Amino acid sequence: MTHVAHGAFALSSRLDAFAATAVVDRPTLVLDIERVSMQYRALKAGLGFARIHYAVKANPTREIIERLVAEGSCFDAASRGEIELCLSQGADAAHISFGNTVKKAGDIAFAHQAGVTLFAADAEEELEKIADNAPGAEVYIRVLVENSQADWPLSRKFGCRATMVPELFDRAVALGLRPVGLSFHVGSQTRRPEMWAGVLDHVAEIWRGLQAAGHELSVLNIGGGFPAFYGDAVETPTRYGAQVMDLVTERFGAVPRVMAEPGRGMVAEAGLILAEAVLVSKKSADDTHRWVYLDIGRFSGLAETEGEAIRYQFTTPRDHDAMGPCILAGPSCDSADVLYEKRPVMLPMTLKAGDRVVIRNTGAYTSAYSSVGFNGFPPLDVIVL
Amino acid sequence: MTHVAHGAFALSSRLDAFAATAVVDRPTLVLDIERVSMQYRALKAGLGFARIHYAVKANPTREIIERLVAEGSCFDAASRGEIELCLSQGADAAHISFGNTVKKAGDIAFAHQAGVTLFAADAEEELEKIADNAPGAEVYIRVLVENSQADWPLSRKFGCRATMVPELFDRAVALGLRPVGLSFHVGSQTRRPEMWAGVLDHVAEIWRGLQAAGHELSVLNIGGGFPAFYGDAVETPTRYGAQVMDLVTERFGAVPRVMAEPGRGMVAEAGLILAEAVLVSKKSADDTHRWVYLDIGRFSGLAETEGEAIRYQFTTPRDHDAMGPCILAGPSCDSADVLYEKRPVMLPMTLKAGDRVVIRNTGAYTSAYSSVGFNGFPPLDVIVL
Repeated sequence: MTHVAHGAFALSSRLDAFAATAVVDRPTLVLDIERVSMQYRALKAGLGFARIHYAVKANPTREIIERLVAEGSCFDAASRGEIELCLSQGADAAHISFGNTVKKAGDIAFAHQAGVTLFAADAEEELEKIADNAPGAEVYIRVLVENSQADWPLSRKFGCRATMVPELFDRAVALGLRPVGLSFHVGSQTRRPEMWAGVLDHVAEIWRGLQAAGHELSVLNIGGGFPAFYGDAVETPTRYGAQVMDLVTERFGAVPRVMAEPGRGMVAEAGLILAEAVLVSKKSADDTHRWVYLDIGRFSGLAETEGEAIRYQFTTPRDHDAMGPCILAGPSCDSADVLYEKRPVMLPMTLKAGDRVVIRNTGAYTSAYSSVGFNGFPPLDVIVL
Repeated sequence: MTHVAHGAFALSSRLDAFAATAVVDRPTLVLDIERVSMQYRALKAGLGFARIHYAVKANPTREIIERLVAEGSCFDAASRGEIELCLSQGADAAHISFGNTVKKAGDIAFAHQAGVTLFAADAEEELEKIADNAPGAEVYIRVLVENSQADWPLSRKFGCRATMVPELFDRAVALGLRPVGLSFHVGSQTRRPEMWAGVLDHVAEIWRGLQAAGHELSVLNIGGGFPAFYGDAVETPTRYGAQVMDLVTERFGAVPRVMAEPGRGMVAEAGLILAEAVLVSKKSADDTHRWVYLDIGRFSGLAETEGEAIRYQFTTPRDHDAMGPCILAGPSCDSADVLYEKRPVMLPMTLKAGDRVVIRNTGAYTSAYSSVGFNGFPPLDVIVL
């Protein structure tokens, strides 16, 4: 067993063993595929009868999809490209939901022809596109929720307000679609299960209103938000999932089909990035903080450091030395490519150019964000163990 | 001649002619290579004796480098990858400066062996790496300037404070390097030449201090900041360059070698993006603003909309209809993938899914930022006319 404990740095001894000896010449994401299986099973144990639709966007590495197909997972796809990826790894089209509320007509038609039957929508025009290109499909309506307590609350980009849900249900019926339920998102990295309560209350009220209006609801998609360990203690996936499902059952009773879409919560802890310090400097002799520049930055995989929202942990071979605060930045000539400045990072005072820097729990939302080659740096490399 | 006028939408009739009839199935950057030549010549006419080092990071499309080599341009490279690109297109290594102040030792050694002789630095450790891997090289010290009036002021990421410059010069000499001058950056998209005055005053003071200390200075690298047209009037490139050089000469007299590094100012107006509206919606019946979702967003080429810093112009085939405010967002399931929300964009009230949306003056800092495939969407395609 490689799973040590939440709250500890070392979550996968295979990753650490590899990191200890690996020589790489550019930033590299190392994934432990056994850790993905373990996490899937732990989440499944907690989520019970809910179906897990892995949010492919979190990490579309082929081997992850292949492994999750073997584990029996379903998938949440954001695009035609992600549907094609899942199908290529043996996923059943009936196990793929097209969860992006913003879809091109041609991509809906592609999904429909491939056998995908379940689509997300939050607007009338989207329902019209689905009706035209996937006639008779099942749709769920995404609800906008704003009382998130997540580390990375979502914007207003997705979902419609409660007042619009009934008319979208009616419109879907008129268009020959089958409106089967609701979806929502509590916000990325919602660290404690009890943070779901307010959002679930809000959605349950809409749910009951639709039932009272005569709609038969069979699908509740509770979305993502399942946390990863980034330094603040989080519940184990099994206990987290079980507590969320308790909150769901209290409010919704027996729903025929509950879907959950972990992405970060499935793969973040299955990966670490091998990086390197390229420069350690001060701007003036009396600077209290050092600047540390890594060979990876916001445009080569660490996009989620935007606004310093997601705070990764760093380890180096010099961590037994005295530590001091650093401003951390990426290697590009882009002045926005600064990772942590408002809340500096503690790194060894002896750190110098050429030192290995390991960035932990980076299996989610890293490689996929990497640019094609901004500043001439190649995309984040990926190795699967 | 395709150059119409600054302040007008139509800067290249070749681009517009192509856009009017082109059919593309995904977001595509279209570049007019003749427009790049024209801009190079216009900038050169204004900058006079200054050498132009094109900032490759702005757009590393092969045909642009090839064309600028033919025009006689020099190049500013941010990485080994960009040096390799320039060399592959026939650039002379002596015409390439390695302008990133954050370089891996191995990349410095590569550049040195390839014949690159001029390197940037802003820290002691960087000078040590250069001395070890490119012995005897010429270096210029980048100065941190903070009184920028640019549309996109830079962070404190690059450059050292004035007080540290003399010791870095002394250290460079002690390491056997040749410290030949200074560089700075006024900030990206500095719209008016007179905005350079304060920064030039500051750098000239450091320059004179170094001369007084006995250093012989031959290189003044004035960096980038040359603006593109994004809706607010900007000076023509020739007049802008000439006015900046007047300000430089007033303060520095006859410098043997002045370098300028236009990136945005060289290529932004040589490109437009063909995009498509994927969804037009409201979140509730009484919403005053529509949400318009495009098939391109922050993670597929429009990274510079971060913080709504760079404001592109949009044209559609329905611009003769009544216009209304929109919140504009990208196609990914990422809630941060919103382009303009604080200051909405005016678009036709009749706009609907499937309509062409042209994003103008997007030849710089777009394709290179594109992710490898976030959410399963392919990178921004590029067509060169």
